[in-house]
Amino acid sequence: MKDLSPAEYIDGIKSGNRALLSRAITRVESTRADHRELAQAIIEGCLPFSGNSIRIGITGVPGVGKSTFIESFGTYVTEELNRKIAVLAIDPSSTRSRGSILGDKTRMETLSNNPNAYIRPTASSGSLGGVARNTRETILLCEAAGFDTIIIETVGVGQSETAVHSMVDFFLLLMLAGAGDELQGIKRGIMEMADTIVINKADSGNEDASQRAMLEYKNALHLFPPTDSGWIPRVTKCSALKSKGIDEVWSIIDEYIRHTTSNGYFDQKRKEQAIYWLNEHIQQELHSAFYGDDDLNAALQSNKDKILNGEITSYTAAKELMKLFHSK
Amino acid sequence: MKDLSPAEYIDGIKSGNRALLSRAITRVESTRADHRELAQAIIEGCLPFSGNSIRIGITGVPGVGKSTFIESFGTYVTEELNRKIAVLAIDPSSTRSRGSILGDKTRMETLSNNPNAYIRPTASSGSLGGVARNTRETILLCEAAGFDTIIIETVGVGQSETAVHSMVDFFLLLMLAGAGDELQGIKRGIMEMADTIVINKADSGNEDASQRAMLEYKNALHLFPPTDSGWIPRVTKCSALKSKGIDEVWSIIDEYIRHTTSNGYFDQKRKEQAIYWLNEHIQQELHSAFYGDDDLNAALQSNKDKILNGEITSYTAAKELMKLFHSK
Repeated sequence: MKDLSPAEYIDGIKSGNRALLSRAITRVESTRADHRELAQAIIEGCLPFSGNSIRIGITGVPGVGKSTFIESFGTYVTEELNRKIAVLAIDPSSTRSRGSILGDKTRMETLSNNPNAYIRPTASSGSLGGVARNTRETILLCEAAGFDTIIIETVGVGQSETAVHSMVDFFLLLMLAGAGDELQGIKRGIMEMADTIVINKADSGNEDASQRAMLEYKNALHLFPPTDSGWIPRVTKCSALKSKGIDEVWSIIDEYIRHTTSNGYFDQKRKEQAIYWLNEHIQQELHSAFYGDDDLNAALQSNKDKILNGEITSYTAAKELMKLFHSK
Repeated sequence: MKDLSPAEYIDGIKSGNRALLSRAITRVESTRADHRELAQAIIEGCLPFSGNSIRIGITGVPGVGKSTFIESFGTYVTEELNRKIAVLAIDPSSTRSRGSILGDKTRMETLSNNPNAYIRPTASSGSLGGVARNTRETILLCEAAGFDTIIIETVGVGQSETAVHSMVDFFLLLMLAGAGDELQGIKRGIMEMADTIVINKADSGNEDASQRAMLEYKNALHLFPPTDSGWIPRVTKCSALKSKGIDEVWSIIDEYIRHTTSNGYFDQKRKEQAIYWLNEHIQQELHSAFYGDDDLNAALQSNKDKILNGEITSYTAAKELMKLFHSK
């Protein structure tokens, strides 16, 4: 079957055609050269119509209730606020078969039947760098398709949080009240990224524990250095299952957006993110150029042997290999 | 003044001439091309005589008593065990004037007058990559000069711990008993690297708190996944000021070395470290080749402008820049 032209994709996406949006995202995720080329043309065409959304990163360890939260949150913003929400995931470590993240579309049953919500299960294969690029480009396509609220979901135990933090406006950390072990379960670096910590499962019978957890996290956040945005991270609680407290989460996000828009941080951060990704992509390309070359790989192997035999230092070997790299 | 030949340096270092060792390290740390070339020749010549030491990384937040601990530890291993100790530091973030780390040689007064100890104040300027390379090469020179115990000191709050961990056999984390805030003060990733946690300042009046802290850290370590070496990280306490418990710290290190030597992990880890640094150096060289080029920098700037104007994506810009890079 002949593929559509970039213009056909772009028009389709701009008119909100979900089938074409999904197909375009599949092109973005493809590793085939012709698909990549088509994808780039589509993205360039959508670029002028992108950017007009709130990009929200959501993380938390498995079991914290991320799916239920996103379902409840998505229902709230679409039904109460007339917003359009797209839910993406970034999780290069998982495979679809393990189904750890968005692997099963039916995980968010209500939301996936909501005409103002778009859920994209992730193929989640390949390197973090590749997956991150796909997600960033998918954000642009979703924005061009009219989605004004973008959720990037990730599990809070991997390496992908920094990547997600570098592509969203607002970072939400979902936690549980209870054992006090949560501070151990989540990486400390992740807590420092959070613009808000939301204690989920603050259901009946769990109110006291949730209240204590809120205090604990408030205290913990005080130990961190001030944020670049001048925003003081908030702690709140909710019951995603009972849809309680979701409005409060939204009002925190709304307040953050107003705060950072008025002090210029919102735009500044997006610009910094674009430059950050430029440098990330350059690094990945340099890496591929070196390690993807057969001659260099052969030389790399023989230099490794010399290092392991104590004949040369790692530094000298690197210098030799770079000579070969530059001679090509 | 004409510099010495590589052979003169190598002979001098092998005979234990400290003045020549120091001068060679200065060449290693230099950024001048002729110095670098000389340094590489010296290092290659010393390589066959290097490796025969225990390399120990020591970290802890400021105020934990690292200098006093190293002084006490160094005095113990030189006087009681007839070992020869070299103390280096890696801390790219500090400057000599701030004197935060080994900036002042007199900080370790007893040890610096000890004929079996060599303390090298660090210039600590430049990138982490550069400083790490210098430190690794300095280790080799110190080993060739007959030092069989190498200490790499770092502050436990920066980015340098991963680098240090990747160049030592044993990683020692120094902590304090007390407020319970220590778990917050040190990065969690650092605790996971520790082969032993030593509670310092277990002086009179502080015994109970030290005992409690030991238990807390033992419990905390249980939450971590098992180590590759099969070693179970130990927790102990000492008073560096009173030179109490230092023998116990040494016996833990000794036990670790025997454990990892007998199961083959010691050699395997050193080999993995050498390959790790090969790849690190390659990455640094690729980075310099790209960002050190004037034309590429000019193109980088104009591409950044286009990105910020929303004309192209970061990925397309990276692709364009790589075309220019490969055409050179």
